Amino acid sequence: MTVFNKKFKVKSDRIPTFHDVSKQVKEALNESGVNNGICVVYSQHTSCSVIIQEYCHDRNYWGTELLMQDLVTILEKIVPTCRTEGQYLHPGPEHIKFAAGNGEPASWGLNTDAHLRSVILGRSESIPIIEGKLELGEFGFIYFADFDQVRDRERFVMVQIVGE
Amino acid sequence: MTVFNKKFKVKSDRIPTFHDVSKQVKEALNESGVNNGICVVYSQHTSCSVIIQEYCHDRNYWGTELLMQDLVTILEKIVPTCRTEGQYLHPGPEHIKFAAGNGEPASWGLNTDAHLRSVILGRSESIPIIEGKLELGEFGFIYFADFDQVRDRERFVMVQIVGE
Amino acid sequence: MTVFNKKFKVKSDRIPTFHDVSKQVKEALNESGVNNGICVVYSQHTSCSVIIQEYCHDRNYWGTELLMQDLVTILEKIVPTCRTEGQYLHPGPEHIKFAAGNGEPASWGLNTDAHLRSVILGRSESIPIIEGKLELGEFGFIYFADFDQVRDRERFVMVQIVGE
Repeated sequence: MTVFNKKFKVKSDRIPTFHDVSKQVKEALNESGVNNGICVVYSQHTSCSVIIQEYCHDRNYWGTELLMQDLVTILEKIVPTCRTEGQYLHPGPEHIKFAAGNGEPASWGLNTDAHLRSVILGRSESIPIIEGKLELGEFGFIYFADFDQVRDRERFVMVQIVGE
Repeated sequence: MTVFNKKFKVKSDRIPTFHDVSKQVKEALNESGVNNGICVVYSQHTSCSVIIQEYCHDRNYWGTELLMQDLVTILEKIVPTCRTEGQYLHPGPEHIKFAAGNGEPASWGLNTDAHLRSVILGRSESIPIIEGKLELGEFGFIYFADFDQVRDRERFVMVQIVGE
Repeated sequence: MTVFNKKFKVKSDRIPTFHDVSKQVKEALNESGVNNGICVVYSQHTSCSVIIQEYCHDRNYWGTELLMQDLVTILEKIVPTCRTEGQYLHPGPEHIKFAAGNGEPASWGLNTDAHLRSVILGRSESIPIIEGKLELGEFGFIYFADFDQVRDRERFVMVQIVGE
């Protein structure tokens, strides 16, 4: 039995950003030497998600693939972008005080939309590994989504492989 | 290879309830002796979900953390609370008859909203275990959510650990 | 340690279709000989999802269980069925050109709703296996959902089991 872990970084922008991390995940699988098992691609960040989707050949002016931009439109309807305190209940006064103790400006707490969007889309995807390959089909790509719009930042993508 | 299982109970209320079960899951990991692998935190109940989110330092009068209350607000928009039969197609007459055969009052079937909300948020989360620790980052907590509003009840939270 | 894989086919219709695949997944578990571990039921198709829900004893005229039809109603509100090009940004001109190169009519690309719905509901479910049984409780059934409404087609359901 092999348990293999790899972390790598992506850099997000101040809009919802979608990173195609398929190549890095496949490299991690090759490094692991695992032929059959399960690959969990995971975000430890609570305003990010991992999703599997088709690659879209067209992008908008911001460089976002159009299918992902359609996803943002849908999410905007369900969970509108947080533009000021009071729009959502979170972050409350105690939360802001706690963050201030960590040296964070209050505005960084106005990412409630990102937290809620990431809950809806989930923290990870689990992908079968068969004969050394990820079962993504012809059209499946792995995206790391960062929904936080209040700041650009480095994020960790985690790959955990269990198999043999 | 180790496969370790632990079940424990939480008690829900007649509003959407969110139980922080991070401590119990970490205890299960310690008991398992697993250092590297995958931890699945799972709900066998089809009106409950498992989610990973940031802890919120503020609560409302019902004791619900504000970020979770924001989540309830969002879900209420998408999947309104079921207040009477006929609001949703489910439960139909055959379903009610089946439940009656189990001694259940018809009103217990008016939890369609809970079933639908739990489908959107998912049945489980899979968390990487590295060097004996759950990869939850600094801010990740594990919540067991019970969306059933028609009765308070005991629920099982299941932890399944695979690793070595 | 055992890693066991099984694929099987289901045939979808030109409406959102929900296949109860619980029996096939249980058969796969029996074939695997695994007593304790994790079972991932997975869709490699990016317009399909795997969900766990209660069985509903009533169906509509199309044969869809009523709880699943309620789910479709909810999804229709969030992600309306794509009825013509331009309703969503995807598929853009490059994507249509790419598909045409594969011999696909442009209308097959009008399944943006299916892609987005499948992202919201997720690609897979992970189910604990304890003493040779899937932990689905009394009421849990496994459904493979195909949201693509532009054509009826054969789909692969994948079962990946890791355990001992």
